[in-house]
Order: sequence, then C-alpha cells, then structure tokens
Amino acid sequence: MSDMSTDFLSWMSAIQARTEQALDERLPAPDQQPCTLHQAMRYAVLGGGKRVRALLVHAAGAVTGATPDSLDAPACALELIHAYSLVHDDMPCMDDDVLRRGKPTVHVEFDQATALLCGDALQTLAFELLARETTHRPAERSLTMLAHLATASGSRGMAGGQAIDLASVGHRLSLEALEMMHIHKTGALIRAAVLLGAHAGPPVDEALLQRLDRYGKLVGLLFQVVDDVLDAQADTATLGKTAGKDAEHDKPTYVSLLGLEEARSKAEDLLRQACDALAPLGPKASHLEALARYITHRKY
Amino acid sequence: MSDMSTDFLSWMSAIQARTEQALDERLPAPDQQPCTLHQAMRYAVLGGGKRVRALLVHAAGAVTGATPDSLDAPACALELIHAYSLVHDDMPCMDDDVLRRGKPTVHVEFDQATALLCGDALQTLAFELLARETTHRPAERSLTMLAHLATASGSRGMAGGQAIDLASVGHRLSLEALEMMHIHKTGALIRAAVLLGAHAGPPVDEALLQRLDRYGKLVGLLFQVVDDVLDAQADTATLGKTAGKDAEHDKPTYVSLLGLEEARSKAEDLLRQACDALAPLGPKASHLEALARYITHRKY
Repeated sequence: MSDMSTDFLSWMSAIQARTEQALDERLPAPDQQPCTLHQAMRYAVLGGGKRVRALLVHAAGAVTGATPDSLDAPACALELIHAYSLVHDDMPCMDDDVLRRGKPTVHVEFDQATALLCGDALQTLAFELLARETTHRPAERSLTMLAHLATASGSRGMAGGQAIDLASVGHRLSLEALEMMHIHKTGALIRAAVLLGAHAGPPVDEALLQRLDRYGKLVGLLFQVVDDVLDAQADTATLGKTAGKDAEHDKPTYVSLLGLEEARSKAEDLLRQACDALAPLGPKASHLEALARYITHRKY
Repeated sequence: MSDMSTDFLSWMSAIQARTEQALDERLPAPDQQPCTLHQAMRYAVLGGGKRVRALLVHAAGAVTGATPDSLDAPACALELIHAYSLVHDDMPCMDDDVLRRGKPTVHVEFDQATALLCGDALQTLAFELLARETTHRPAERSLTMLAHLATASGSRGMAGGQAIDLASVGHRLSLEALEMMHIHKTGALIRAAVLLGAHAGPPVDEALLQRLDRYGKLVGLLFQVVDDVLDAQADTATLGKTAGKDAEHDKPTYVSLLGLEEARSKAEDLLRQACDALAPLGPKASHLEALARYITHRKY
C-alpha cells in the first residue's frame, strides 16, 4: 500500500464507514419478524468486506458530479447483490465453504434453509432500494440503473458466470474461456458499480459513459486476476476465507493457466490500461485510479 | 367448475396461452450460454402452472383499462418470482420435494447448484423485465410497480413468510399466527399481482386502488385456505405435487387448526367478502370475480 496517498486512504475509510452505516439503516432490524432471517441478512452484509463495489460507485459518481447522498442507495444495492451471491456461493451444493470474511459462513452460523432465504431476500432488497430511493434523479434514470444492475446480476451476468464456473470444475479451460467466465462472474457486477455511480447524478454524455465503462470492464478482470494470485499465495488467516481452495477444487484460474509470475504481470498490464482509460478525465478521476491500484496491490 | 361461464373459461385459456408465449419470448434461449442454466430456467417456468398470478394481473388490468400488451411484462414478472420461489422451496434444505406440476423438481432433473442459480436468475429476470419494458407507462409508475413487487417478494413478504413457515414446523400455531404466515408467504405476491395489474395502464384513483387491494388481500388468503384443503384431501396424481405433505411434515394448516369442514366454510366466507369488495365496480370486474370463484372451487 506504499503508493496509496493518505488522502485516498482517508477517503476510502470514510466511504467504507458511510456504506456500513447506509447498509445498517436499510437492512431490516434484527428484532423485526421474521427475526432469524433478518439477523442472517445483517450477519451476511454488515461488519466486513472491503466494499470495493460501493467504493467504485462513489468514485465513479465523483467523476460525474453525483452527491454522496445520491450514491448511498446504488452503493448499498451493489453490496447487497454481492453479499447475496457470497451467501449462496458458500452453500454446500456450491463451493461448500465454512469461512467468509473471517467468520463462519451463513449456512454454518444459521442453517442452509436460512442461508437460501437470506440470499434470496438480499437480492430482492437491492432492487427494492433502487426502486424506492428515487428522489435524487429522474425516474427514467432510476429505471436505467435498475436495468443495468439486473442484467449484470442475472443469467447473462453474475449468476451465469457462476454456472459457467460450476461447469468448468475439473475441465481444462482456454484462457479465452476463463476470461469469458470471469467477465460474467465478477466482472459484470464491478462494471455495473461504475455505471450505476456514473448514472446516479447529473446527466452524463455518452463518450464519458463509454470511457468509464471501459475502465469498469478492465477493473472487473483485474480484480479476478488478483484474486487468483492471492488465493494461490496467501494463507487463510490473511485472506479471511479458505485459501488454496481453487487448486484443491481443481478450478481453472489465471495462476493455473499462466503461472504466478505471468498472472501478476497480466494484472499490472490491466492496471496500466485502466489508468490509460481514465487519463483524459484529469484529477476528478483520481479516486477511480487509486482504486484500481488498490485492487491490484491489496493483500487480501 | 360448473359455475364457470364459457366466456370466463375461454378468457382464462387465452391469458394462460398468452402468458406462456410471453414467458417463452422473455426467457433466454436454451442454446444461449450458459445453456444448462437457461434450460433449467425454462424447465422451471414453462409448460405448467395455472398462471393464477398472471390471470390476476390481466383481470385487474381489465378493471383499470390497461391493454393486454401492457400487462405481459408485469404478468411475466409475477410468474417468474413465483417460479423462483417454487424452485428454491423444493430444494432439499427446504421442503425437499421431488415432484412439481407433475414433473421432477429442478434440483432432481438438473442438480442442486443449478436449481439454486436457476431460482436466483429467475428472480433477477423478473425485475429486469419490469425495469426494461417501460414504454406502456410513465417511468414513475414502473418504479412504483417495481417497488410493490420487491416488497411483496422480500423478507417482509414472500421470503419472510417462508422463514416463518420453516420456524413453525413442529409447533402449534394460533390461527392468528398461521394467518400472518400465509399473508406473507402466498398472500403478498397475489396481492402484488392485483396491484401491478391495476397500475399498468391509465392512472387510477386511490379509492379504486384500495378496493382492488382489499380484493387482492382476501384472495391471497383464500388461495392458501383452499391449498390446505386440497392438500388434505387430494391425491398426488391430481395435485401434480406430493399430496399430504403438510400432515407428514407436521406443518400447521387451516385444516389441522380448523378441521376440513370449517376450513371449507372459511374459504366460502372469504370468497363472499372478495366478491363484496368488487360489487361496486360492475361488469368490468367480472373476470376478477370469476377468478376468485375459480380459486375457491379448483380441484388442484
């Protein structure tokens, strides 16, 4: 993290704290019926995570002049979709994982039925927030944001990527096929985070949107390459989730296809391209650029 | 069905066929990647079901002057949410059922991971349709419809009702607690079907909305009372799903609390109240009234 300015680090802490509070306020209270479900939803979402998607929403919104207030609902919606996907992904019929963000996974802490309903209800809440918190923008724009989030999450986005991932276990994938999987599984939602942030404030011209979308696409891939590198080299305590599980599950990764060094150099290459995409935007894109660096050089 | 007019029966067939086609057109093609997931989604949704929620959307839309074209997307969205809930509800960690609409359930025909992702992606598609098919109404109205659907589906609606249901297995419930469960588990989505149909067309005044909402609330309860009666008395072949499973799972039902005869008479009472709510609306509510009768007197 030596290349992170203190300015960026304090912005990041502020957005993380802000998002934690925004989520806390929007999740049903733990004593509201059905209590167990609401407790599971809060357990799955609060008190952990780097909030990369929320950070991207706020950093993209800073480029287009959106106010922080107008970015809370989209940031929360992204984090809720991400959290739901983790809860379901950790279940025994999927990755069967017992540890997430340093805590027992939801189906371990509660039970499988609660984990299933918890993920379901977190997804619904994401769309509910975007449909209800609409005072900051014209209704058409809220619909555009909802449509982007849905496409990025569904069978032609994140859920589709997970299906491709499942089908690929034990198979040798080409680099192209691996990339296609990750563009869906992780990339689509990260790209949506940038787009939702960009759409949240004043109207934005198409050229700027396309530039931000190019950045989002590159950072989505970057995120996954770095994830694979971290999984291959980190230990479980640092990662906060079970390390080395890709190799154990015989999952194709950038590291298994390219080797550790080439995977690292691919990450640096993607980072360079992402920064190039932002270059014409000047200082207002500084948080987006610093985020790409942070994603590349994070330790967990 | 002796009290069903041929006019109503042919309207019902037409809407069922129309909805089947509308769903077919909106579900991803079976040869689109990821193929298995898309095949599972189509398997879960197409070729079965009474389409009660789609029928309610169209019948409520007929009251408020919405065109059939403007009702297809909301009707599909309701059916997709319903289908997703069945796919997840049938999974081993929930009701563990192997038969649905006379066919093997999704996790039996495919596998559990595919069933999990299939349900997830069907939910997303429901919101995607409502966010993308917006030409028939002002954007604000689409947002209202999205918000209603989300609230009815989430932890304070359908998913919450399922959580209450899980928590109640093996417990004696009061009639009041049973009603609270069903108002969420089945009732919320049926009520949303009526509201979405009512909102889909020209602007509607608040008094009419409230009248339709009262009908929707009553029919939601009615539907579940009749379901319990059918489960207690029907055989598996007629029902198309495993019969008698409520008693087997020691689930509280209207029949276990009230007895078969009193549960039947409660259904008739709810039907009467639902018809009373519609009475001032005249002939344009005739399909809604006939639907309430159909729901009461169906055999499966």
